[in-house]
Amino acid sequence: MHTYRLAFIGFGNVGQGLAQILLERSEQLKIQFGVQFQVVAISDFVKGSLYDPEGLDLEELLKAVQKTGHLKAVTAPHMGWDAIQTITESNADLIAEMSYTDLNTGEPAVTHIRQALNLKKHVVTINKGPIALAFPELNRLAADNGVSLGIEGTVMSGTPTLRLGQDVLVSAGITCIQGLLNGTTNYILTQMEAGASYAEALSDAQANGYAEADPTGDVEGYDAAGKVVILANLLMGASLTMNDVDRTGMSHLTPEDIQAASSAGEHWKLVGSITHENGSMKAQVRPQRLPKTHPLANIGGAINAVTYTTELLGDVTLIGPGAGRLETGYALLSDMLAIHKS
Amino acid sequence: MHTYRLAFIGFGNVGQGLAQILLERSEQLKIQFGVQFQVVAISDFVKGSLYDPEGLDLEELLKAVQKTGHLKAVTAPHMGWDAIQTITESNADLIAEMSYTDLNTGEPAVTHIRQALNLKKHVVTINKGPIALAFPELNRLAADNGVSLGIEGTVMSGTPTLRLGQDVLVSAGITCIQGLLNGTTNYILTQMEAGASYAEALSDAQANGYAEADPTGDVEGYDAAGKVVILANLLMGASLTMNDVDRTGMSHLTPEDIQAASSAGEHWKLVGSITHENGSMKAQVRPQRLPKTHPLANIGGAINAVTYTTELLGDVTLIGPGAGRLETGYALLSDMLAIHKS
Repeated sequence: MHTYRLAFIGFGNVGQGLAQILLERSEQLKIQFGVQFQVVAISDFVKGSLYDPEGLDLEELLKAVQKTGHLKAVTAPHMGWDAIQTITESNADLIAEMSYTDLNTGEPAVTHIRQALNLKKHVVTINKGPIALAFPELNRLAADNGVSLGIEGTVMSGTPTLRLGQDVLVSAGITCIQGLLNGTTNYILTQMEAGASYAEALSDAQANGYAEADPTGDVEGYDAAGKVVILANLLMGASLTMNDVDRTGMSHLTPEDIQAASSAGEHWKLVGSITHENGSMKAQVRPQRLPKTHPLANIGGAINAVTYTTELLGDVTLIGPGAGRLETGYALLSDMLAIHKS
Repeated sequence: MHTYRLAFIGFGNVGQGLAQILLERSEQLKIQFGVQFQVVAISDFVKGSLYDPEGLDLEELLKAVQKTGHLKAVTAPHMGWDAIQTITESNADLIAEMSYTDLNTGEPAVTHIRQALNLKKHVVTINKGPIALAFPELNRLAADNGVSLGIEGTVMSGTPTLRLGQDVLVSAGITCIQGLLNGTTNYILTQMEAGASYAEALSDAQANGYAEADPTGDVEGYDAAGKVVILANLLMGASLTMNDVDRTGMSHLTPEDIQAASSAGEHWKLVGSITHENGSMKAQVRPQRLPKTHPLANIGGAINAVTYTTELLGDVTLIGPGAGRLETGYALLSDMLAIHKS
């Protein structure tokens, strides 16, 4: 039985999802994989920070945060540590980076991850910013320090998009990747096909928790572009940055556009794609009219999907959730189990 | 650089596909994975058998078989060895079992695999018969002898169905599996939706090489049932045999049945499924009318797909080829690379 000591940087929805999974499945993880994950620290800028080298009580933490929205009623031997202090001074050997995403600077997560790796602590993260902006550097840093950097949850939450690509499909020769990488926009487009206007569909998505108050990151394609960069760099040997993605959002699509496609038996989708032609890479995010026979055409709702075109298998498509508390928490668990297996 | 010495048992379409992949990709495999696969023996009941402990010339073999349909014009230090002699007396440390499939006895492949594992040789196979009938025994034998038994190609050819399930999704808690596991029947049903009768669609499938002269194994669901057994035993901890699968074929479906479903916005699919309810397992193959929103409903043509329902991710669907020379050859390569990595 191997025990990892885990520090959570951030305790929002995803952190709480991971905590719930670890709480409910600790026995099963011991039996099935011979592993135990003990959460020793949580550091959240807003909700509060706790560190107990002997392990925190996840049930108590979840109850507190669900009841009060913060951790201030819980006590621990050390309290109030910020992220860097938690990473540096705690006895954690595995850091779950779940602070907020910034697709312009990647901060503060880049600094968190760099610090952890330099201290030879494994990192798992669902944070797109640092991975879209600094993956090559951070991955090299992990290798140099003999630890792992798990990033499954940065694309399509727990749907094993990156693992399927990296562990298996790269050997089939990936020549092209196309994906519905943003559930919010796919939900909006599906609602518009059912007759809603863009404004109605957006407000419906917001009411259902799929879209944020400021939907720019989703509807203008920035979120999908970040994922395109990650897919290209991890699975197709590229060294792209956000600026290399030719990005067009979908907020300009009108009910008439949608209707015209439907009449022609086609579906508008916001497609992120990477094509590899004669040694040069073309990365795009843009709305596309897909014929019904396209593997991504019929996927409706807040679902994500990716089609890998390969030399030996032709098209392989993976469809699954792209968000959600447990779904994204599971992405971290799957990375943690991969670290344990290696 | 590690070199595996490989023996092919069977040199039909799949063996030739694997040979072609190894021939075309040997440099890339060295560079990308630090591995070399040297084919030292081929034993085919009909086409002839050759063994050279120093390695055979794949290019010469492929040319010969493509020109004459057999290997009799090629010479090697040892010729005419049967499968068992090849497994036993050659210096191969990795056996690719690609002889014909028998879903009643699993023979002669069960004997081939058992012999290889007992001699501490790794085995990779695309042969459903032995795996549907004897996987638990053979898997234990592999473990006892410290070698691997790779079976990716027994379900959905090179589409990484088993690897995705076993390496990743089992940790999300697989509660149900549903699949379009037979490309021939999916092709026939797609043609019938386009207006063909069953007889026309079958003869079209035969003309395109999707269906055999005797289509019973496909259209009566035996092939899908074998795959259901493999999925249940590998991914859901069952110990099923072929007789445990409640099997109904699709040859009785009429154009009127198809039309009635279409009018209701539904699609007939031959679905293989395993559900896990209160500790008891229900395994079925039967034609089902799926609503358009079902992840398997819109998949047309000779394509395979599987939906894994999981506790933590909900539905995850994988779509890809279920047959083909290079596609199935790649299944073996992916198992060989997995052996190399472990």
